[in-house]
Amino acid sequence: MQVGVIGLGAMGSAVANNLLKAGFALSVYNRSPAKAEALAAKGAALEKTPAEAARGDVVITMLADDAAVENAIFGPDGVLSTLRPSAIHISMSTISVALAERLTEAHRAKTQGFVSAPVFGRPEAAAAAKLYVIAAGAPDAVERCRPFFEVLGQRSFIVGHEPPKANLVKLSGNFLITSVIEALGEAFALVGKAGIDRAQFLDVVTGTLFGAPIYKIYGGLIAEERYHPAGFTAELGYKDIRLALAAAEALKVPMPLASLIATRLLALIAQGGGHLDWSAMAKLAAQDAGLETTPRSSH
Amino acid sequence: MQVGVIGLGAMGSAVANNLLKAGFALSVYNRSPAKAEALAAKGAALEKTPAEAARGDVVITMLADDAAVENAIFGPDGVLSTLRPSAIHISMSTISVALAERLTEAHRAKTQGFVSAPVFGRPEAAAAAKLYVIAAGAPDAVERCRPFFEVLGQRSFIVGHEPPKANLVKLSGNFLITSVIEALGEAFALVGKAGIDRAQFLDVVTGTLFGAPIYKIYGGLIAEERYHPAGFTAELGYKDIRLALAAAEALKVPMPLASLIATRLLALIAQGGGHLDWSAMAKLAAQDAGLETTPRSSH
Amino acid sequence: MQVGVIGLGAMGSAVANNLLKAGFALSVYNRSPAKAEALAAKGAALEKTPAEAARGDVVITMLADDAAVENAIFGPDGVLSTLRPSAIHISMSTISVALAERLTEAHRAKTQGFVSAPVFGRPEAAAAAKLYVIAAGAPDAVERCRPFFEVLGQRSFIVGHEPPKANLVKLSGNFLITSVIEALGEAFALVGKAGIDRAQFLDVVTGTLFGAPIYKIYGGLIAEERYHPAGFTAELGYKDIRLALAAAEALKVPMPLASLIATRLLALIAQGGGHLDWSAMAKLAAQDAGLETTPRSSH
Amino acid sequence: MQVGVIGLGAMGSAVANNLLKAGFALSVYNRSPAKAEALAAKGAALEKTPAEAARGDVVITMLADDAAVENAIFGPDGVLSTLRPSAIHISMSTISVALAERLTEAHRAKTQGFVSAPVFGRPEAAAAAKLYVIAAGAPDAVERCRPFFEVLGQRSFIVGHEPPKANLVKLSGNFLITSVIEALGEAFALVGKAGIDRAQFLDVVTGTLFGAPIYKIYGGLIAEERYHPAGFTAELGYKDIRLALAAAEALKVPMPLASLIATRLLALIAQGGGHLDWSAMAKLAAQDAGLETTPRSSH
Repeated sequence: MQVGVIGLGAMGSAVANNLLKAGFALSVYNRSPAKAEALAAKGAALEKTPAEAARGDVVITMLADDAAVENAIFGPDGVLSTLRPSAIHISMSTISVALAERLTEAHRAKTQGFVSAPVFGRPEAAAAAKLYVIAAGAPDAVERCRPFFEVLGQRSFIVGHEPPKANLVKLSGNFLITSVIEALGEAFALVGKAGIDRAQFLDVVTGTLFGAPIYKIYGGLIAEERYHPAGFTAELGYKDIRLALAAAEALKVPMPLASLIATRLLALIAQGGGHLDWSAMAKLAAQDAGLETTPRSSH
Repeated sequence: MQVGVIGLGAMGSAVANNLLKAGFALSVYNRSPAKAEALAAKGAALEKTPAEAARGDVVITMLADDAAVENAIFGPDGVLSTLRPSAIHISMSTISVALAERLTEAHRAKTQGFVSAPVFGRPEAAAAAKLYVIAAGAPDAVERCRPFFEVLGQRSFIVGHEPPKANLVKLSGNFLITSVIEALGEAFALVGKAGIDRAQFLDVVTGTLFGAPIYKIYGGLIAEERYHPAGFTAELGYKDIRLALAAAEALKVPMPLASLIATRLLALIAQGGGHLDWSAMAKLAAQDAGLETTPRSSH
Repeated sequence: MQVGVIGLGAMGSAVANNLLKAGFALSVYNRSPAKAEALAAKGAALEKTPAEAARGDVVITMLADDAAVENAIFGPDGVLSTLRPSAIHISMSTISVALAERLTEAHRAKTQGFVSAPVFGRPEAAAAAKLYVIAAGAPDAVERCRPFFEVLGQRSFIVGHEPPKANLVKLSGNFLITSVIEALGEAFALVGKAGIDRAQFLDVVTGTLFGAPIYKIYGGLIAEERYHPAGFTAELGYKDIRLALAAAEALKVPMPLASLIATRLLALIAQGGGHLDWSAMAKLAAQDAGLETTPRSSH
Repeated sequence: MQVGVIGLGAMGSAVANNLLKAGFALSVYNRSPAKAEALAAKGAALEKTPAEAARGDVVITMLADDAAVENAIFGPDGVLSTLRPSAIHISMSTISVALAERLTEAHRAKTQGFVSAPVFGRPEAAAAAKLYVIAAGAPDAVERCRPFFEVLGQRSFIVGHEPPKANLVKLSGNFLITSVIEALGEAFALVGKAGIDRAQFLDVVTGTLFGAPIYKIYGGLIAEERYHPAGFTAELGYKDIRLALAAAEALKVPMPLASLIATRLLALIAQGGGHLDWSAMAKLAAQDAGLETTPRSSH
């Protein structure tokens, strides 16, 4: 089976590697070809355009944002022009619901298969094939994607027949993460200003009610004010919460907490912290409380 | 060793039972004595006043709110009047930081021991001796309380030498729970209005990033809109978030998310939902989205 | 001097009428030509395309939203194709800062004049030539527009040399109006639930601190809960607050109050009140307080 | 007619002076008697206790906060002990609705008259007898107070028969002022960051929609970032918005905007700006936008 992977950032490269390991015939495309060389050395075919990478049975896109996906699909040498009717485009990027809707329409018009399958997981999880895949699409198309999901992730969730639903679920998940960060930020400002040991407080939080990894990871970063280097930047976090709010606007669902978080992340960015980890949102709560003067510094 | 327990609601009765089982000599007091009878039948001494229940080595208060604790401690026949200098008052109620400060002062002035030890856990957890105890106080006093914590809970956390710190940590924990409810409420309104199956969404949330019991419990209640009967009412939740905000005000720590949640819970109460489970806050997000007209109904 | 007016809604028709009265040679264009007939009867030339209406010395656009302006300017028979280098496009519509930037660039590339001149005022004010004009553009171009501003409004304000600045000021003004509505809505819910006479409260507000017409107009609508028919609909209000927030996002200026208002207006729309006057936002505060169950009804 | 005035701060002194000028027989009390000397020189009798100042036909309290009023009325030598049944206490201080309720009860129990009559206006307005008086109480009592209101203010508003209603209206008015400050703060951050001249923007705002003095006064302070010396401090502003929110809590009226403002003012205080004018709230919006690093500085 011939598979193409478009987008070879940290996530895309990990995906491509795992597909190679699993024995798929792989062709890859990346805007800057340098990133593709290691994969070529392992046997992947380097393509010059997204269109070339989409000539097989399945093409996977794993790109940074809406613009990159639009370009790869609708652009002059885009996927749309070469994907065969029976082939499937699996979109794993975190993109807007509106773009997922547009992709659904465009592929349908060409009777090409389309499955939205964004993931939860950082690059290390991707490398270890431990991603969680959130998928939606026509049942038969999703069924044909299962072997890929099994190679790439530890578990997959099918959330509907319309591809954009998977994107909405992914964006909702990211919103839930930001809500944990904001809540922890305010709580740490409160107990910290009272002189309670931050590590001890984290110990209570994760040892009682909140054993989930998210609380351990972000609680740890906030307790130690370790926001640099970023696992996921405030700028990307802002992009995602804005995508969630755009979907909410289209559906007419007011989300006051999501709006509060967008305001927080924008303030962090405005004050020079866009490159910090999104958990640096907690610096704003500290700043409000007079515990520090500015989110600009990095550690 | 002689122990008194003041307050025999669901939580206090469970505590008293476990102390009896562990072989402590127990005296109990409750404003309405009917609740004390079952304990008397098992060997507890029924006292007529808090003062009488405080003549032993340790007296534990497990009461509903500040007013009840103030009355039991500072009232005419209150604990303060009879507690021996070497004895310890363990305050397990969820009370304000300000009252904990006042108790600290009052007991210190009488050279009586005082340890704040609020708990995380519902009545069932109390009955099963699975509470989490958050304790603070003078180290030697806390040390002398350990045997009790071991009998009553699955784990204890010592968060400082000043008793009010334990109350602040407890209130911060409750704030974190409310933030989960609000976030889930908004997320369910979003995916629900998009037509995504609520149970399926919950499955994704708890199966990927948020395995903690809190997400399973409150996510389940919200997914099924099962807000009645209440595990913990919106009214009590509002009381606790107000206590957190009062502590934050005293420490000068602005908490926009906590303020948003207080506004939500007050709206729920204003619309007749004070008796519902505090997770019914999620009904407000649904109402905002036009998914239902009023939080008044219960199911 | 030859003037074109594109867009003959309530505002545009009033503008065109005043220009006719002032003796300008007028050509007009409206998508649905019926609205242009009354003007034709008074001597205006009816054009079949925006391009035709832009052949004179000045062309004024007064349209509903970004899409309408984009179409009239950049569309196949758009203004851009016929406007002479020395001529000026005066954009009086309430549009996004981003579109104003795009218009600035496009006209500059063609060495056509461009002045942004959005207005404050309702159709009655437009008819009475009592508009306030907020203008920005190259000084000489603005100077040449002054005769028009004098014919159309009671006063004009020049806020800079770059046209988009006028749009930002206009959107900021609309944001200030919504903030008055939200504040009054909460205040009326508070005093109303206390049993204070609403008319009496309005009397205090406008008779002491807040004599401005905005408070009298919106205070009156809210006091009497008279939200239908709309002077300016909640849907248009939402559009404008979103344009303000989009400009704020581009400039990296977090606006928590503007975000709160956007959330409120979206809730009003989601609950079926998009056609009501934007002051119906006050219904949400009443609903939160349990004073009414739904914003759906109109009076 | 014998009148007592309790509280001789800037406001109380102005009130006392105007009563002297109008020919009333005046007795005065102030905790620190130095402030009373100028009045004594003009013929006022200096009293040693509030009780002594309350032996006449009317006693007016004009004090800083709830605690001062409680002390003057309920304290050992308080007004309650000497006020004659037919005499009237006029409470002009900005106090909580709860304290106004307690005063209503206490005076009723002693068949003493009680009228709540808080005012809008700064000390200069008080000196010029230009206050606005917001009064509530039993109609006959209010009627007997009219001559005083006429001497002290430019206009009085009677808002009900129950004294606490006047306090609620006064607190609501102060909330409306803070909402103007927050809205202007965000708008100035937005247009300021875009490079629009602040004075010019203020000119537009006050020259079009918002001619009310409040917009001119606070708009001017914010445009020039002139927050010191304070006309009314952020700390007093915070106190008043908290009183409004406490009343709203008692009435079960959620007020998201009032909550946002309380959060803002608390942040300003936490960052060292409690002594600045409450319009310095606008510094927070500027800080959020990265326009300044801290509200600590004063000018």
